[in-house]
Amino acid sequence: MARRYDSRTTIFSPEGRLYQVEYAMEAISHAGTVIGILSKDGIVLAAERQATSNLLEQSIGSEKIYEMNDNVVAGVAGLTADANILINQSRVIAQRYLQRFDSPIPVEHLVRRLCDLKQGYTQFGGLRPFGVSFLCAGWDPTFGFQLYQSDPAGNYSSWKAACIGENYSNAQSILKQEYKDDDSSDAGSNSSNVGSAGTRMTMDDALKLTCVVLSKTIDTAKLTSEKLEFATITLKDDKPYIHIYSSEEIDEVLKKYDSVMKPSED
Amino acid sequence: MARRYDSRTTIFSPEGRLYQVEYAMEAISHAGTVIGILSKDGIVLAAERQATSNLLEQSIGSEKIYEMNDNVVAGVAGLTADANILINQSRVIAQRYLQRFDSPIPVEHLVRRLCDLKQGYTQFGGLRPFGVSFLCAGWDPTFGFQLYQSDPAGNYSSWKAACIGENYSNAQSILKQEYKDDDSSDAGSNSSNVGSAGTRMTMDDALKLTCVVLSKTIDTAKLTSEKLEFATITLKDDKPYIHIYSSEEIDEVLKKYDSVMKPSED
Amino acid sequence: MARRYDSRTTIFSPEGRLYQVEYAMEAISHAGTVIGILSKDGIVLAAERQATSNLLEQSIGSEKIYEMNDNVVAGVAGLTADANILINQSRVIAQRYLQRFDSPIPVEHLVRRLCDLKQGYTQFGGLRPFGVSFLCAGWDPTFGFQLYQSDPAGNYSSWKAACIGENYSNAQSILKQEYKDDDSSDAGSNSSNVGSAGTRMTMDDALKLTCVVLSKTIDTAKLTSEKLEFATITLKDDKPYIHIYSSEEIDEVLKKYDSVMKPSED
Amino acid sequence: MARRYDSRTTIFSPEGRLYQVEYAMEAISHAGTVIGILSKDGIVLAAERQATSNLLEQSIGSEKIYEMNDNVVAGVAGLTADANILINQSRVIAQRYLQRFDSPIPVEHLVRRLCDLKQGYTQFGGLRPFGVSFLCAGWDPTFGFQLYQSDPAGNYSSWKAACIGENYSNAQSILKQEYKDDDSSDAGSNSSNVGSAGTRMTMDDALKLTCVVLSKTIDTAKLTSEKLEFATITLKDDKPYIHIYSSEEIDEVLKKYDSVMKPSED
Amino acid sequence: MARRYDSRTTIFSPEGRLYQVEYAMEAISHAGTVIGILSKDGIVLAAERQATSNLLEQSIGSEKIYEMNDNVVAGVAGLTADANILINQSRVIAQRYLQRFDSPIPVEHLVRRLCDLKQGYTQFGGLRPFGVSFLCAGWDPTFGFQLYQSDPAGNYSSWKAACIGENYSNAQSILKQEYKDDDSSDAGSNSSNVGSAGTRMTMDDALKLTCVVLSKTIDTAKLTSEKLEFATITLKDDKPYIHIYSSEEIDEVLKKYDSVMKPSED
Amino acid sequence: MARRYDSRTTIFSPEGRLYQVEYAMEAISHAGTVIGILSKDGIVLAAERQATSNLLEQSIGSEKIYEMNDNVVAGVAGLTADANILINQSRVIAQRYLQRFDSPIPVEHLVRRLCDLKQGYTQFGGLRPFGVSFLCAGWDPTFGFQLYQSDPAGNYSSWKAACIGENYSNAQSILKQEYKDDDSSDAGSNSSNVGSAGTRMTMDDALKLTCVVLSKTIDTAKLTSEKLEFATITLKDDKPYIHIYSSEEIDEVLKKYDSVMKPSED
Amino acid sequence: MARRYDSRTTIFSPEGRLYQVEYAMEAISHAGTVIGILSKDGIVLAAERQATSNLLEQSIGSEKIYEMNDNVVAGVAGLTADANILINQSRVIAQRYLQRFDSPIPVEHLVRRLCDLKQGYTQFGGLRPFGVSFLCAGWDPTFGFQLYQSDPAGNYSSWKAACIGENYSNAQSILKQEYKDDDSSDAGSNSSNVGSAGTRMTMDDALKLTCVVLSKTIDTAKLTSEKLEFATITLKDDKPYIHIYSSEEIDEVLKKYDSVMKPSED
Repeated sequence: MARRYDSRTTIFSPEGRLYQVEYAMEAISHAGTVIGILSKDGIVLAAERQATSNLLEQSIGSEKIYEMNDNVVAGVAGLTADANILINQSRVIAQRYLQRFDSPIPVEHLVRRLCDLKQGYTQFGGLRPFGVSFLCAGWDPTFGFQLYQSDPAGNYSSWKAACIGENYSNAQSILKQEYKDDDSSDAGSNSSNVGSAGTRMTMDDALKLTCVVLSKTIDTAKLTSEKLEFATITLKDDKPYIHIYSSEEIDEVLKKYDSVMKPSED
Repeated sequence: MARRYDSRTTIFSPEGRLYQVEYAMEAISHAGTVIGILSKDGIVLAAERQATSNLLEQSIGSEKIYEMNDNVVAGVAGLTADANILINQSRVIAQRYLQRFDSPIPVEHLVRRLCDLKQGYTQFGGLRPFGVSFLCAGWDPTFGFQLYQSDPAGNYSSWKAACIGENYSNAQSILKQEYKDDDSSDAGSNSSNVGSAGTRMTMDDALKLTCVVLSKTIDTAKLTSEKLEFATITLKDDKPYIHIYSSEEIDEVLKKYDSVMKPSED
Repeated sequence: MARRYDSRTTIFSPEGRLYQVEYAMEAISHAGTVIGILSKDGIVLAAERQATSNLLEQSIGSEKIYEMNDNVVAGVAGLTADANILINQSRVIAQRYLQRFDSPIPVEHLVRRLCDLKQGYTQFGGLRPFGVSFLCAGWDPTFGFQLYQSDPAGNYSSWKAACIGENYSNAQSILKQEYKDDDSSDAGSNSSNVGSAGTRMTMDDALKLTCVVLSKTIDTAKLTSEKLEFATITLKDDKPYIHIYSSEEIDEVLKKYDSVMKPSED
Repeated sequence: MARRYDSRTTIFSPEGRLYQVEYAMEAISHAGTVIGILSKDGIVLAAERQATSNLLEQSIGSEKIYEMNDNVVAGVAGLTADANILINQSRVIAQRYLQRFDSPIPVEHLVRRLCDLKQGYTQFGGLRPFGVSFLCAGWDPTFGFQLYQSDPAGNYSSWKAACIGENYSNAQSILKQEYKDDDSSDAGSNSSNVGSAGTRMTMDDALKLTCVVLSKTIDTAKLTSEKLEFATITLKDDKPYIHIYSSEEIDEVLKKYDSVMKPSED
Repeated sequence: MARRYDSRTTIFSPEGRLYQVEYAMEAISHAGTVIGILSKDGIVLAAERQATSNLLEQSIGSEKIYEMNDNVVAGVAGLTADANILINQSRVIAQRYLQRFDSPIPVEHLVRRLCDLKQGYTQFGGLRPFGVSFLCAGWDPTFGFQLYQSDPAGNYSSWKAACIGENYSNAQSILKQEYKDDDSSDAGSNSSNVGSAGTRMTMDDALKLTCVVLSKTIDTAKLTSEKLEFATITLKDDKPYIHIYSSEEIDEVLKKYDSVMKPSED
Repeated sequence: MARRYDSRTTIFSPEGRLYQVEYAMEAISHAGTVIGILSKDGIVLAAERQATSNLLEQSIGSEKIYEMNDNVVAGVAGLTADANILINQSRVIAQRYLQRFDSPIPVEHLVRRLCDLKQGYTQFGGLRPFGVSFLCAGWDPTFGFQLYQSDPAGNYSSWKAACIGENYSNAQSILKQEYKDDDSSDAGSNSSNVGSAGTRMTMDDALKLTCVVLSKTIDTAKLTSEKLEFATITLKDDKPYIHIYSSEEIDEVLKKYDSVMKPSED
Repeated sequence: MARRYDSRTTIFSPEGRLYQVEYAMEAISHAGTVIGILSKDGIVLAAERQATSNLLEQSIGSEKIYEMNDNVVAGVAGLTADANILINQSRVIAQRYLQRFDSPIPVEHLVRRLCDLKQGYTQFGGLRPFGVSFLCAGWDPTFGFQLYQSDPAGNYSSWKAACIGENYSNAQSILKQEYKDDDSSDAGSNSSNVGSAGTRMTMDDALKLTCVVLSKTIDTAKLTSEKLEFATITLKDDKPYIHIYSSEEIDEVLKKYDSVMKPSED
């Protein structure tokens, strides 16, 4: 029955669903996995490259991780061409904010603007939704490090650790088990001390956890820098510092946490 | 037969129904419950968060309750992305009013403008209705505290106590039984003394009633601050004061009224 | 066969009918009844509220009866959200007229403008008709008191007594029997003395007749102010004076004519 | 087979027909009859009101006959709301002409402009044709009294006596038999002395003929002013003078020609 | 199979045909015949009126033959309302040309502009083709007398004698046999002396031939001025002179050539 | 299966074809043949007129061959009305170029602009492709004589000899056999000496070859000037000189090469 | 099932695919092969011409390889008319960049702009995707030589050696085997020394490899300059230098590497 309501974003099904938006999410579920983990002193983003070939020029630009602004870096899952459009828009939005207010754009503000754009494509005729999800890792003085996930419907939410793309539910459940957060014992207790990340895991723990999740999620014999992209956002001299890893750096990280990345026999 | 008339907002069915609008309302009936209760000295809003995960960052922003203006706070049920668009619009409308008339926007005026916007999406081609309902709690000097409910069709009405989202009819019937209003004995008698809330329940009663309704409506073993959002609008120095509760405050409230919140065996 | 021609306002059926407009009228036939009766010294409007709940805040605003201008008050049957749009438009039209001509808008002029607006929604693609009918009661110096009915097609007509909404045909036939008009004996004889209402019924008679019709039309054990709205337009110091009744006033009226409002056994 | 080509004004059927336009004409064939008869010294228009009720206010405005300009009066058959739009347009066109050329608009010019407007609605997408026909009776210095008929397709033609609406073909055939025109013996002979109506019937003859046709066309026991509208355009001080009959005047006319209006037994 | 490609002007059928254009031409094949014959000193246009009634006012305006400009007169076959639009446009085009270049518009230029307009309606969505063909008879100093035929597709061609409307192929074959053109013996020989009509037939011959063709084409016992329109364009003081015949003049012509107009027994 | 993808230019079939464009080409394959042959000192264009009648006025304008600019002449196959639009556009483009750069438009530039226009009609909704192909023969100082063919898709290519319209493949294969080009022995050797036509055939050879191809392609007993149009572009005083042949000149050419134009028995 | 979702770019299939985009790619898979190989000191582009005829004028312009800017040359596979539009756009983009920043456009910037344009045609209604892929070879000071491939979806990626068009997968697999890149042993090791091409193959190697791939991919007895286009971009005086090969030069290259181009027996 779904069939009658699934060809336009401008109609609800009798159950109140928007099938085109769900199909767009389906597109994302075939894309390479992207993982983000919030730590005490920064955020780790890691992404899986699905298409690899020794003929691909890997030295220029990254494919799955993009700097949106000085204080925001995003991992992308879904249609790359759609992502490009939204990343361009995000950069323009961030720069306009800077120009107008002479202050870097708050992370949530940027994510919300991006999502409003996406929402429009689910409500107006003659358009299709953007077939792309983002994990946006950013820092601003008010809320500190933040990790947002946005989907094709234009929804976004704030996470301590999140995952989008292929096998995302698998990765998410590993994250739930493994993510260490001293707050988690007394959930909600730190809701007033926003901006201080309390007794969360360190960047090293986050990197390690990322490797664990990747090794259990990505279906490959051995993880190599060829199939992965890594980025971190940390503070340097009290300013957000985005670092996109080179192949060598990725290999170093992989080597360092090699021991924890046993083949997922379970 | 309904099938022939349910794929556009721009056609009536032979019975004079707009199916797309009804389907949009269906979307809302799957969303987390939002409850609003008007008391003598303010309004209580409470909302259920459906998606919970220990990985969700709860410290930043609320998900279901938004400040629309200095004197209006709204609880949202339905598609979050749609809600964001309308909340943005509402804020702009409220600020423009302030700028033009140098006076805070009357609550009904804001709600009406919001609803006119919604109505347009049910009458023009190539659009779908907004899949979101609001409970708007506000105060203005003319009519005092007011609680409005608006639906995807663009209708709104003024309530003493209202509920939207999942199980709303259940909650509504509990409210009908439990809501104490000295006017209710002589209905209509206070229709002339608008602005004075007469012998209505106090904020404490309202909070208590809210907890009762929530405990009987939400399908969970125990209510925690993780699954709930609370907000109140009261008067402070004769000015409207909106307070969105922190997790700790929610837990306090829950503890305080723990006794009345027995599992709904009936 | 009707089926092929009923999904757009922009096509005629082979019999020359516009089904979408007829379906919109169907929507109105489910709405609460609105009655208007023209008397010698004014017009009575009464409307039935269908949705009632002790939780509804009745003290703020009316739901079915709206002031359109200083000299026009309207009762509404149909989709409330659609009505709001048209009432806003009417108010703007009336104010623009006042501003341009420094004289209150003639009643028919306002109704015609409103209807022209409605007509457009029955002729252009990508729109649906407004699902709302109006009873507009007004006064202007040229034609005195006037009562107009308008439908979703954009037609309007002038009545001595009219009814829209649920059971309208029932109410209309009672009105035909009961409406006293000394002209009716020599129909047409007063067509030249427009503006003078001749030997028509008084406001008291009109109120009484309204109560009779309401009691026989609305399917309820006992009429209360909770289910009703009343308004009158009369002359006060030679200026039109619109009075929307408070709950108490409605109850008074109901009490006064209680005797005539026996349950409709016939 | 017609079915495939009848849902839009923008397609021809294989036989070169525009079904939507024909369906619009069908709408007119259910409307009240309008008759126009050209006489030596003026034109008589008469129209049948289909909806009658003693509750209808007959003293304000006419329903079927409208003044378009100082020198043009029109009878309308079809959708009233559509007619209103076109009459408004006609009045604007006529006034603009007057303003620009300081001379009343020639009758045919006005009719042509009206028809061009109608034509557009039969050729462009997303529109339906206007479901209304006009009989326009007018006078201008160049061509004297003229009677035009226009249909939903945007065609118009000039007649000595014409009829639109229900039973129009019946009325037309009576007119053919009864219409006296001394030219008819030597058809075409007066084609050069345009402007002089020669030996045509007088206004009285025209009124009488109108009554005859009405009595044989309208399906009622007795014609009354309640079911009829009458208007004439004549010359007064060399200026066109439009007179719309009051109920009393209609009754007088009906009484005067009562003898010729026997029930149509044939 | 044609069925799938015949509902829009914007699609070709697999055979490369535009069915909607062909259907529009079908509409023309039911219209009254129009004949044009080029002679040495002018052009004769004759048109058949299909709808005749003694109630039609024949004294005002012609129905099938229109002056487009001082130097161009056109006969029309097809939908009259469509023709009116195009004639208006033509007149504007011709006047704009005159205003800009201070010289009458060349005949072909006007025809081409008219046809470009028509073409647009066969290529863009949401429109139907104009259902009308023209025979344009004109004169300009460069090419002398010219006779153009244009169809709904926007094609035009130059003819010595042409016919459109009902029975056009019949008329065309009579014209082929009867048209006398001394050039025809040595075809092409006069292609260089454009502007001089050489040894073509005289206006009298053309009028006679027109009558012959009409009598054999129109299905009527006897041709009368009631069913016909005649026009000629000739030179008068070296200026184009358009003459539209009055009824009397038509009757004279018919009487004059009565002998050659025997009933078409073949 | 093709059926599902052939009704719009805006969809690809699963095989990546645009059926509407192919259908438009089909329209061209029924049009009169146009042949163009490049020679050492100019280009010959010849076109077949399909519709001939002794009633057609041949002395005014050509039907298949048009001057686009001082240096470009084009032969047209397909829908004439479409061609007219494009030729108008081409002339405007060429004149604008001249005005802006004070230099005649390069031939390829004009052809490309024309084709870009055509392309748009194959990619945007609500349009059909232009049903017309061109053979454009032109000269510019940079590349000398050039012969381009363009199709409804908006593709163009440069040819030494080309043919469009009915029987084009037949004509093309004759041209392949008969076209003499000393370069053809060492293909590509002259690719550097653009602008010099080397040892190509002379204009006389080209005219002769044209006649041969025409006689073998066109299905007629004897070619006459009535069925043909001829044009050449050559250099005269170092300026491009376009000559469109008169009937006499065509007859002369036909007579001259009569011997080679034996009936195509093969 | 695919059938329901494959007729518009504006809908996702339930699997999250955009069929129209895939069909557009199908169009490309029938186009002539284009190969690009990055070497130490430049890039080689080679393209197969599918349509060859001795009547085609090969001396003017190339058909498959276009200069986009002083520093970018592109090979095209797919619909030529679509490619023309995009190449025009690219040239304008590049020139605008130069004008604004007084510096040649970075290669990736140009490719991204081109792809954003393509993306739009896959998301908005009433359009079809561009049916064309590009191989863009360019040089800029920051990243040195770069080879990008873009598809109809608007995706692009950077390659060391790439192939589009017919048999592209075959060619791609040969390239994978044969492409020599000293980096390939320690993949990723040069990711930091962007701009230096390290120990890659020389231009001669690249040309040779191109010939090998062409000979094994193109289905012809012997490769000739008639069926091929070649272009290189190298540095000359530290400026990018684009060279499009003449027929002679192509033949020279083919002769030089004749030995390696044995018929592909495997």
